[in-house]
Amino acid sequence: MEFRMAKWEVFLRVIAILFLVLTACLVAFDTQTKVVFLMISKKATYKDLDALKILVYVTSTAAGYNMLQLCKHTFSALPTISNFKTSYYMYIAWITFLLDQIAVYLTFATNTAAFQAAIFALNGSEAFQWMKICNKFTRFCEQIAGALLCGYIAPIIMTMISAISAYKVFRMYSSKRFMHFKGK
Amino acid sequence: MEFRMAKWEVFLRVIAILFLVLTACLVAFDTQTKVVFLMISKKATYKDLDALKILVYVTSTAAGYNMLQLCKHTFSALPTISNFKTSYYMYIAWITFLLDQIAVYLTFATNTAAFQAAIFALNGSEAFQWMKICNKFTRFCEQIAGALLCGYIAPIIMTMISAISAYKVFRMYSSKRFMHFKGK
Repeated sequence: MEFRMAKWEVFLRVIAILFLVLTACLVAFDTQTKVVFLMISKKATYKDLDALKILVYVTSTAAGYNMLQLCKHTFSALPTISNFKTSYYMYIAWITFLLDQIAVYLTFATNTAAFQAAIFALNGSEAFQWMKICNKFTRFCEQIAGALLCGYIAPIIMTMISAISAYKVFRMYSSKRFMHFKGK
Repeated sequence: MEFRMAKWEVFLRVIAILFLVLTACLVAFDTQTKVVFLMISKKATYKDLDALKILVYVTSTAAGYNMLQLCKHTFSALPTISNFKTSYYMYIAWITFLLDQIAVYLTFATNTAAFQAAIFALNGSEAFQWMKICNKFTRFCEQIAGALLCGYIAPIIMTMISAISAYKVFRMYSSKRFMHFKGK
């Protein structure tokens, strides 16, 4: 049964990595060149917008982190290490739980920041007299929209992963006494 | 020991409510009127920016939700209801866990969206030719900055609350068998 949960976790982490990498690639390789005035052309890349730059960094880092967690699974599948003491297990489980939480929140936050920036680029702002950008760089904006969609699927999967790691931590505690370990 | 955790949860929820209400009030009651050109004056309110409007709605709702959870605590402190069956306890614990998660993510996301909008208002964007707003409405922007700070403290406290509700759910499961309840 333990094995079934590990299988689920690996499966979810692989899917999360795919979506994170897809998001990073879609944003990073998105360029569009447009002639603005006679011979003057302007090239739009993700570097024009801090929110997109941070999105690329954070999604890549999150993908790398999940990759490391997968490696951990490969190692802990070795038979000799399965005799870990409970205290060691708890140590790893707590760290994984906390790191998973941080990864989800960071990915979610950078995505939302990029989403807000995209809304401004799409609609502009009348109150602030900011002009729309997406009516000029339409294809660029469409690709960013796709990236943001993938970028929202990733944190949703990662919340499930972090629920699994919360389960792994908290089921070790007694249901009767506060923050006491269960007897073996 | 059970009581100690409940006390912590109530304490954290009260603090979270305070910060949520403070954020909502700071944003909602922030106005600044400025003479733009001769006799024409412009008034800045949170309604100029969708991100701030949503922030007010979401933080108020989250405060209301936490208030309801506090009421639940008052009721479940009654002696007669402490004889609940485990299945009923789990039902409540799972719903609380899921709602807490949703509340944290929504509060965090709207705050981050507002933060991104504030960054644009503060720095403008050279690439997009968007002008700065905060050099005109300085006092308005300072108050929003304070609101965002409070708005980030609230989700941090709410993550702790959701960790407590995760603990309440998952400690009921067996540490040996996958998703099996513990024997009494």
